[in-house]
Amino acid sequence: MKETALNFARTHQTQNLSDLQELLRIPSVSTLSVHQPDLQHAARWIVDYLASIGIANADIIETPGHPVVYGEWLGAGDAPTVLVYGHYDVQPVDPVDEWQTPPFAPTVRGEDIFCRGATDDKGQFFAVLAAAAAYLKSSGALPVNLKILLEGEEEVFSPNLAPFVEKHRDRLACDAILIADHPMIDAQTPMMMYAVRGNCYLELTVQGARADLHSGTFGGAIENPFNVLVRLLAACQDATTRRILIPGFYDRVREISGEERALINSGPANDGALMYLTGAPAVAGEAGYSSAERMSVRPTFEIHGMPGGFIEEGAKTVLPAVAQAKVSMRLVPDQDPAEIAGLVENYLRSLTPPTVTLAVKRLGLVQPAVIDYSAPAIRAAHHAYEEIYGRAPLYMRGGGSLPIVYDFQRLLGAPVVMVGMGLPDDNPHAPNEKLHLPNFYRGIETMIVYFSSLAVLNRG
Amino acid sequence: MKETALNFARTHQTQNLSDLQELLRIPSVSTLSVHQPDLQHAARWIVDYLASIGIANADIIETPGHPVVYGEWLGAGDAPTVLVYGHYDVQPVDPVDEWQTPPFAPTVRGEDIFCRGATDDKGQFFAVLAAAAAYLKSSGALPVNLKILLEGEEEVFSPNLAPFVEKHRDRLACDAILIADHPMIDAQTPMMMYAVRGNCYLELTVQGARADLHSGTFGGAIENPFNVLVRLLAACQDATTRRILIPGFYDRVREISGEERALINSGPANDGALMYLTGAPAVAGEAGYSSAERMSVRPTFEIHGMPGGFIEEGAKTVLPAVAQAKVSMRLVPDQDPAEIAGLVENYLRSLTPPTVTLAVKRLGLVQPAVIDYSAPAIRAAHHAYEEIYGRAPLYMRGGGSLPIVYDFQRLLGAPVVMVGMGLPDDNPHAPNEKLHLPNFYRGIETMIVYFSSLAVLNRG
Repeated sequence: MKETALNFARTHQTQNLSDLQELLRIPSVSTLSVHQPDLQHAARWIVDYLASIGIANADIIETPGHPVVYGEWLGAGDAPTVLVYGHYDVQPVDPVDEWQTPPFAPTVRGEDIFCRGATDDKGQFFAVLAAAAAYLKSSGALPVNLKILLEGEEEVFSPNLAPFVEKHRDRLACDAILIADHPMIDAQTPMMMYAVRGNCYLELTVQGARADLHSGTFGGAIENPFNVLVRLLAACQDATTRRILIPGFYDRVREISGEERALINSGPANDGALMYLTGAPAVAGEAGYSSAERMSVRPTFEIHGMPGGFIEEGAKTVLPAVAQAKVSMRLVPDQDPAEIAGLVENYLRSLTPPTVTLAVKRLGLVQPAVIDYSAPAIRAAHHAYEEIYGRAPLYMRGGGSLPIVYDFQRLLGAPVVMVGMGLPDDNPHAPNEKLHLPNFYRGIETMIVYFSSLAVLNRG
Repeated sequence: MKETALNFARTHQTQNLSDLQELLRIPSVSTLSVHQPDLQHAARWIVDYLASIGIANADIIETPGHPVVYGEWLGAGDAPTVLVYGHYDVQPVDPVDEWQTPPFAPTVRGEDIFCRGATDDKGQFFAVLAAAAAYLKSSGALPVNLKILLEGEEEVFSPNLAPFVEKHRDRLACDAILIADHPMIDAQTPMMMYAVRGNCYLELTVQGARADLHSGTFGGAIENPFNVLVRLLAACQDATTRRILIPGFYDRVREISGEERALINSGPANDGALMYLTGAPAVAGEAGYSSAERMSVRPTFEIHGMPGGFIEEGAKTVLPAVAQAKVSMRLVPDQDPAEIAGLVENYLRSLTPPTVTLAVKRLGLVQPAVIDYSAPAIRAAHHAYEEIYGRAPLYMRGGGSLPIVYDFQRLLGAPVVMVGMGLPDDNPHAPNEKLHLPNFYRGIETMIVYFSSLAVLNRG
């Protein structure tokens, strides 16, 4: 059955690419309300696709936000059940000028396909669906039971997914949760991710006067909220050690073992590679930790943008009424995002002078998570990579945040298996996002082998 | 002749308002290149207006930037010559959502006319032209010789005006330079401004990686340029004393005499009035100085906006490649804007880590200036205010910057007479800019009396 499916996948690469392009063309940007209809459109497209491959009960399930797509194939009897998770929403496209081709016009250049969502996450979850299709279309059956759960709110921190999983935990019961949403080391080196960082995303608003003023008339006597805000932000991180200065911030950070430290530093994330990849003139980060550690087992403090005032071409001498900052902190076990948000707010309030008001809005809170990588469901993925790539995957902690990993573990009690077919230079969340097509095709094959290996391992 | 002109002005208020509305309707925003044709349109409108009131030689004179309008009436023999200066360009209109009526639809509400440029400076220089019109249309002559010079680049720091004045200094020779571009204390209390602050406007650009990155993948190991920029900016001003920390910044600041300090503090700029006017929860500024001093005789450091990164609705976890800040410093005699720009650049470079690059662009440099207010040309304005308002004007140093004051003094050697008919809540450079119509009409009358008083004083 596995070989038939692999043959089917190898002879239907063009069809799979063409289907993916249809999905990529839908601009399903979840954070911008103007794209609401596109989210519905993408969900509907996936339902139709699932029906076409033999998952007839697939349907859209509305949530208070963007809808969930759910479908299942349960014809494998007492074989293991895999819950496939992915997200069909994508990041915004700005700065749009920096895209070489329009962000929602999927374009193949060389061996890559360029489009917003190509790697994060449409291309990757679609590879899993295509693996299921290869079985169902070639043999009419799968070696495992399959439950498919795709959400449209991952890029806005999945506010409605955990409640959904909690409500439907019996229906979603499974032996493994499969998530394909991360990069490989390079096109020849697969990687198993066994942790994700959390996130605490805040929007800070500092207000001085009730309206913008002339900086000549009032400058010097009325507070400039940007002058205050840069001081608040600068007080959050030490200029030299890059330690985060928010009191209590590190209290729950789990220090890693020497063994795990060695494992992490055996990966390819050295300083030279990082500088080459990013063009940065030097690496930077917390004193006492390597770049690989800074990107995975250490928390961060990042300013994403500072709305307010005058940001157009030229010079305008406005004394702004309002200054804002979008700030997020990547968190590691056992930091709690709500607790961190409280610490930040308390700290900033203690530093805010009476000349302004400060508002702190929580735009997203995501728990960090670590997975036990000795589980059979993880070993099966290890075997699948070995069979397709001819080498064992490296094991890494991921630096990004997958909101649902923590909740899946908590609510379903099954191991989360994070596989990936992206590359480190895929530009997720940035202009010219892409997916490497050889990874896409081998990713489909790896997933075919995975389903088979999981069935075998579980029996054994 | 003066009484006839005053009568004419009083019976032609509707006509003057209607003419001003035509001029206000032209969106002559000098800093945005898309408005280039509107600058030409505004200049042409003024030339036509001047021709219509009997200044037949008025014409547009091109410069490397936006054009100058120049015209003269020299029929007063050896009476004094007044050079009238104003600017027909205006500030940008953003944030446009905060305007109650469209920024370029002049709208009378109550006793005010709302429009971008109403007070800064179209409404004010037009009042001077209307005063000349009242003489010329009622008597066919003026008591003084008049030279009219209007530029279209004041809001972009007048890069071409000083060269123009230098080139035409013989033609522009005069006994007084009249500028109407500032507020009164309130609608009953006129004010003579005898100084302006300078300005040093810089755009700072900090770059880390060559392109935006995912803050999950790279966060913690690659520099965030906003994190660096807020530290650089925070290092420019003491959080407590609000002293500017750029080494050498205060070296050339002239301390004022006890007598002048008393004069400045006798004005109406008390803390309660400022809080009421602006809605700020408290005043703020340099320790050891009053609000009135902070707004006039002390330099400032202001952040106007911080372009870069993600500033739209919602959350995006980008690690930006570039962070910018638009910053300006109001300067006081004898600070030199080019020298200050150099000090800032040196200081920031010394603080910039090797993980980013820093670029400093000079967007505008304006010299500060102080006027000798005992000159007859100033006394004449004092008398004109007394006659129309029934009270002596207060004397103040202005907090804003008029690029040309320093250059006029230097190149033409005549006193600069800064009169004004704005109000402190006119919102120049902000949404809902307005001009108080009673000020407009009495401003025209004051200018009529001024021309007459200057002729008499000069004879006496």
